[in-house]
Amino acid sequence: MTMNGNSAGGLGHGYYFEDLSVGMEARYAKKITDKDVLAFADLSGDVNPVHLSDDFAAGTLFKKRIAHGFLTGSLFSTVLGTKLPGPGCIYLSQTMKFRAPVYIGDEVVATLRITGLDTDKARATLACDCAVNGKTVLDGEAVMMVDRRTPRQ
Amino acid sequence: MTMNGNSAGGLGHGYYFEDLSVGMEARYAKKITDKDVLAFADLSGDVNPVHLSDDFAAGTLFKKRIAHGFLTGSLFSTVLGTKLPGPGCIYLSQTMKFRAPVYIGDEVVATLRITGLDTDKARATLACDCAVNGKTVLDGEAVMMVDRRTPRQ
Repeated sequence: MTMNGNSAGGLGHGYYFEDLSVGMEARYAKKITDKDVLAFADLSGDVNPVHLSDDFAAGTLFKKRIAHGFLTGSLFSTVLGTKLPGPGCIYLSQTMKFRAPVYIGDEVVATLRITGLDTDKARATLACDCAVNGKTVLDGEAVMMVDRRTPRQ
Repeated sequence: MTMNGNSAGGLGHGYYFEDLSVGMEARYAKKITDKDVLAFADLSGDVNPVHLSDDFAAGTLFKKRIAHGFLTGSLFSTVLGTKLPGPGCIYLSQTMKFRAPVYIGDEVVATLRITGLDTDKARATLACDCAVNGKTVLDGEAVMMVDRRTPRQ
């Protein structure tokens, strides 16, 4: 795991484009609690009963209440916005494939790794993975625009 | 805007696959407040100062604090999980392109429209758009697996 002292503090500027290289990696882990799921439902308005009702969830493929996919996915944003590339980068795009449910109480580990750098456009592509007990539950790809240390003329 | 009485209440089962047709549309609007942005930062751990610090944001391209892209994007999940297709569907994938910033105080309107139905796999594809004052700030595509009213043998 590669860390940037400045961005890890959450306040300074993150990596500049010139400081990035393919293979750099960062992660963030979070245990998803019932309180988190209720807060996300409140915030987003997504009150789908598969997240909120034990009875409804019991009748689904999942058998138990699951976390919102976007709550899990938001951990990608957390890594991107606070660690790699960190503050100052601009989010251009994200893809997500939901592979398996996340249950309340699961610890999700989001791992992001730089897979491509476009020097002309100062863009970084990152492979994004969220796993529970080592099994991928969500993966995808992010593209970020990253500040140059020395702006081009 | 097409609505399903059951799913609009947030508790019953949403549309079944057989009830869907290309062109059906649903939407959800939310004004993004400062409180929402703080709550999302707390929930996700994404404390990127572009969302939280007026001083930091003043030095960025955006000039002012912006909402988390995933907070805006979560409105797609809200429509999918509560309106179209509504409860019972399973989220397979989502793409997102962040086109423009969302500022605190902006009202975001998420509009989703069915663009494709795969009868063999019981999957629906939806075009997803979030707009502020009629201008797209985020768009992408969602793919959902939808319960059949009559399960296939």
